[in-house]
Amino acid sequence: MEHMSQAARTRPRVVIIGSGFGGLFAARALGRADVDVSLIARTGHHLFQPLLYQVATGILSPGEIAPATREVLSRQRNTQVILGEVGDIDLDRRIVTASTLGRTHRHGYDHLIVAAGTDQSWFGNPQFAEFAPGLKSIDDALELRGRIFGAFELAELAAAQGRHEDVARLMTFVVVGGGATGVEMAGQLAELSRRTLRREFRHIDPATSRVVLVDVAPAVLGAFHPHLQESSRVALERIGIEVRLSTAVIGVDADGLDLEGPDGERTRVEAVTKVWAAGVAANPLARHLADQVGLRVDRQGRIPVEADLTLPGHPEVHVIGDMIALDNLPGVAQVAIQGARHAAAEIRRTHRGEPTGRAFRYHDKGSMATISRFRAITQMGRIRLTGFIAWLAWLAVHLVYIIGFKSQVTTLLHWMVSFVGRGRSERTVTEQQVFARRALERSRR
Amino acid sequence: MEHMSQAARTRPRVVIIGSGFGGLFAARALGRADVDVSLIARTGHHLFQPLLYQVATGILSPGEIAPATREVLSRQRNTQVILGEVGDIDLDRRIVTASTLGRTHRHGYDHLIVAAGTDQSWFGNPQFAEFAPGLKSIDDALELRGRIFGAFELAELAAAQGRHEDVARLMTFVVVGGGATGVEMAGQLAELSRRTLRREFRHIDPATSRVVLVDVAPAVLGAFHPHLQESSRVALERIGIEVRLSTAVIGVDADGLDLEGPDGERTRVEAVTKVWAAGVAANPLARHLADQVGLRVDRQGRIPVEADLTLPGHPEVHVIGDMIALDNLPGVAQVAIQGARHAAAEIRRTHRGEPTGRAFRYHDKGSMATISRFRAITQMGRIRLTGFIAWLAWLAVHLVYIIGFKSQVTTLLHWMVSFVGRGRSERTVTEQQVFARRALERSRR
Repeated sequence: MEHMSQAARTRPRVVIIGSGFGGLFAARALGRADVDVSLIARTGHHLFQPLLYQVATGILSPGEIAPATREVLSRQRNTQVILGEVGDIDLDRRIVTASTLGRTHRHGYDHLIVAAGTDQSWFGNPQFAEFAPGLKSIDDALELRGRIFGAFELAELAAAQGRHEDVARLMTFVVVGGGATGVEMAGQLAELSRRTLRREFRHIDPATSRVVLVDVAPAVLGAFHPHLQESSRVALERIGIEVRLSTAVIGVDADGLDLEGPDGERTRVEAVTKVWAAGVAANPLARHLADQVGLRVDRQGRIPVEADLTLPGHPEVHVIGDMIALDNLPGVAQVAIQGARHAAAEIRRTHRGEPTGRAFRYHDKGSMATISRFRAITQMGRIRLTGFIAWLAWLAVHLVYIIGFKSQVTTLLHWMVSFVGRGRSERTVTEQQVFARRALERSRR
Repeated sequence: MEHMSQAARTRPRVVIIGSGFGGLFAARALGRADVDVSLIARTGHHLFQPLLYQVATGILSPGEIAPATREVLSRQRNTQVILGEVGDIDLDRRIVTASTLGRTHRHGYDHLIVAAGTDQSWFGNPQFAEFAPGLKSIDDALELRGRIFGAFELAELAAAQGRHEDVARLMTFVVVGGGATGVEMAGQLAELSRRTLRREFRHIDPATSRVVLVDVAPAVLGAFHPHLQESSRVALERIGIEVRLSTAVIGVDADGLDLEGPDGERTRVEAVTKVWAAGVAANPLARHLADQVGLRVDRQGRIPVEADLTLPGHPEVHVIGDMIALDNLPGVAQVAIQGARHAAAEIRRTHRGEPTGRAFRYHDKGSMATISRFRAITQMGRIRLTGFIAWLAWLAVHLVYIIGFKSQVTTLLHWMVSFVGRGRSERTVTEQQVFARRALERSRR
């Protein structure tokens, strides 16, 4: 890329790492700035992570929540998109090194925005990952789709052959983690088994599936007001989900989980399909940067930054989104989006000769989570909504934030099919979901 | 499944193998018959194969052309769907043995309908498959999607680094096979590079991509009238596709193909991305059946059947669709659909005590193929259409045959986006497309 930058050497070069909410909105915010933008990301698509659980449960297609980054940014003539995984950031020489299928490329920068996000974390138990995959990427979602629908197929077969223990194990779904992702995933598993699949099997009744939601905290949806936490728990239980709070996961294997309850009692849940929605850790680039400036990352691998989101001693480097440890900011899209706009504004100010170094101020626009169809919770400042009204708010906000008109239209349609009707349009499982196949093979069934 | 069939032992048991056009329509045609139907298939979805190329080129999502078989048949209370691959058919004992993730299950039948279709064939060169994948399954389509969009990503990188030979190789796409699938695939590759990707890259101009269509026959679209063949060839060349006829593929590797032209001259085409749309061979169950009744399969592995589509000596076994060698029937959906209805009608007649053994009569409803957006060819008896009118006919017929209202609506929308606009809604490539990644890695680039 050295090659490319020669032509435009006079314009400041901004390199952005990541194509999530932070990276994409940073690129957009610089669309009309007099700079050359290079966005480097390890996938070719932006990802609307809050709806991943709907890809996993067959409501949406990957394309609806993962538009090609290149297409989204195609009208910004000052922006190039580069597929590659960043392995090194040389803060002294101001060079980012990335690689694409084994080929290395280097990108010099005048400004760097690091928005590499987080990966799933199994809290020091990486061996859990094989049995309880996370939900952070399109691959994760399709993997879980394969496991979920595969489990019902195998349960039908087991029932026809009279293997009742196997049926129970195949029809038990455990979601670890009671945050928004875990709650929404559990809710959709309940909907899937109670409504969508109702008439489709002959030997099992999918409505008898067991859905268990486990969290080590004493309440679900920790980011919400206690009233909303409690009403959510009640709503989850009302649709048949077993909510196990103050409960730690101490073991996960092909056939189930070992749990430790509030009084230290240990129980075993036999379940072929497990979903890990419990924790995240910052992308390793956070530590890579921290090491270079003599800082320490926190327990979740996040890097402390200055109040203006720059790396200490490096006003030309902004770190935004989930990767940073600052003022206990939550790991939500709005923190990344607002951080992106803040960093872009600072860069524009630098080149207009205006003073920079303004502190980042996060405006909490509120939080929301769906429990099930027609039922959600929403919290905006002091306004707290539950039930149908909250669900309408959820619907509106998510439709607006999905990138691109065509995805908004098909998504609305798929939601109608799924919420008003009971079908799921995107259930296709491929052979390439080899890990799903292996996971099911390894379980007793 | 022995277990299950006891309850309904008094009703005749019909086992159907396959969930393609033949299997699905056979099950539907028996929906109200007084029989128990078991449909066994190795995928959980029906597949609308004629539109696979649109999944490969990012227009449609898998869910739109591959609805869950279980969902399509959910209202037929007499029908069960079983996921499994059939390994053995015992004609004497009338038992089908299938396996699902290593677990074996057996299904007794009174009637058997074998509709297992065809697999891709590389004409005795299985080593070509790795470099030039076929287009017969959702996996194939997603694999090709990964290779096609990946090739453009790598070309952009190669161009930025000044590796011009690599750019040319990455931006050359070769389709082997000039039947409907090959022609439609080549047409869409041209559209993709000329229209969809036009403004998305900074170092390459996708419109300069080379699309080559190769066939060993002297004309494209062998099933059509020579006038339509010639007008199609002209239309393909007009949108910039190199059509190489009377040309055999004698070698395929990671970086290109070796061809032998009409006068025996050999040429090499450097191309990272190759698509094999050249030939098919019947599912091995055809030979398995043939061996048991002392018959021989033909060159494409198809089994000769009686005029009423039954296996010689076995009036209880119908073989339908692409697997049979009978009267030079073409390998198209209508042959399978009409064969399915014929077999179902014969089975119903058997149990009403009516005479059976009627000869299958195929009614050619016509053939069609799209060349590009707004341009197709259609042939119905003596009526031959080209251009926009033919394309409208193509649009109408394909919309009608896509299973399910919701898929029809989203598909229409995706077509509007793609034909009226220039976008593609379903470009998402996953990490699970490991073979695509490996193929690109192995090429020089």
